[in-house]
Amino acid sequence: MKQPRKSDFPVSQVRRYLEPGPIVLVSSALAGKTNIMTLGWHTILEFSPSLVGLMISSGNHSFEMIRESRVCVINLPTTALTETVVRIGNTSGRSIDKFAEFGLSADAASAVDAPLIGECHANFECRLHDDALVDRYNFFIFEVVKAHVAASPKHPETLHYTGDGVFMVSGKIISRRSMFRPEMLG
Amino acid sequence: MKQPRKSDFPVSQVRRYLEPGPIVLVSSALAGKTNIMTLGWHTILEFSPSLVGLMISSGNHSFEMIRESRVCVINLPTTALTETVVRIGNTSGRSIDKFAEFGLSADAASAVDAPLIGECHANFECRLHDDALVDRYNFFIFEVVKAHVAASPKHPETLHYTGDGVFMVSGKIISRRSMFRPEMLG
Repeated sequence: MKQPRKSDFPVSQVRRYLEPGPIVLVSSALAGKTNIMTLGWHTILEFSPSLVGLMISSGNHSFEMIRESRVCVINLPTTALTETVVRIGNTSGRSIDKFAEFGLSADAASAVDAPLIGECHANFECRLHDDALVDRYNFFIFEVVKAHVAASPKHPETLHYTGDGVFMVSGKIISRRSMFRPEMLG
Repeated sequence: MKQPRKSDFPVSQVRRYLEPGPIVLVSSALAGKTNIMTLGWHTILEFSPSLVGLMISSGNHSFEMIRESRVCVINLPTTALTETVVRIGNTSGRSIDKFAEFGLSADAASAVDAPLIGECHANFECRLHDDALVDRYNFFIFEVVKAHVAASPKHPETLHYTGDGVFMVSGKIISRRSMFRPEMLG
C-alpha cells in the first residue's frame, strides 16, 4: 500500500481533519506490543492546547493499553483504506498483530511511544490530558502534541460511519468563505 | 422553505445521524426567548441511555441559555440549508431573533422546553445528563430523550465543517455490511 509523504502540521489546526467527523484508526503500544482500533466517537474540544475527546469503549483491547501508556496516535484513513478499516474494526488485538496482519507500516512517532500508521493521510500524536471522565464514560481527553499531514490531496475522501456496516463518504467541498465574518475564519 | 415530514425514531440509534460528524443546529429557549447556534464539536458517548457530548463555547449567547434551561434540541440540517447554516453561525442571538430572521419554523418539542427547527431533516430533544466538564471544557453531556427523523431521503447530504468557511459534503454511501461480524452490526 502507498505511504503518502507527510509534513509537520500545526496542532492548533487539526480540527480541519477531525471536525468533519471521520472514522479514525487509533494506534497504541504497551510492553512491546502494538494495536489498532477503529473509532468514530470523537470530538474536538479546544484549539490551543489542541484537545480532542475520544470515547474508547472498555471492551476494546486498546482500552487498557491506552489507559496505561497514556498516549495514542489518531490516524486518518482515506477511502483507499476502506477494506482495511473494516477488517481492523472486526478483529481484536488480543488474537492478532494488526500491523502485521493487514500489512501496515508502524512508523516511529516523534513525541509519544506509540506507532504512526504510515499508510494514513494524517497522524496526530496524543498525550492523555484529562482522565476525569474515563471511569464514568470511557471518555479520554487527549492533547495533540505533534501532527503529520500529507500535502496532497488537500481534501481526501474520508469515511464517516453510520452504523450497520454503512459509511458515508466525504470529499466534495463547498466554500462559503465570502459569507463569513473575518473573525470567524482561520 | 420546505418542512420534511418526520416520524419518531429510536433514541438509541441517533448515532446513525450524528456519528458521521455533521454540522448541527442547536436550538434553545429561556424566559420566552429562543436561539439557534451552529455546532461541529460533538460526539456520541453511549447508545442507551442515548448520550451525546457537545462542546458549546461560552462565548455563544446560547451557552447561558442552555446551561440555565438544562435542555436543547440538536437539529440536523442538509445541504439545502447551507446558506442558512452559515448565516446562523455568523450572527448572534444577542441582537437578532434567528427563527424570525431566517424564516425558520419553531415547532413545539414533546419532551423538552426548546423549539425544534421544522426545516431540518432530524430533531433530537435533549436533557442535560452531566455537567461535570462544563466549567473546565464547556463540555455538556446530554441525553437524547426524543428523536424525530424524516423518512426520506435515507441518507441526506450533510455538511461537515473543516474551518475557514469550507464544508465537506457527505451523502454518497458505501456499504461493507457483508464484511462485518454479526455482533458488530445493528
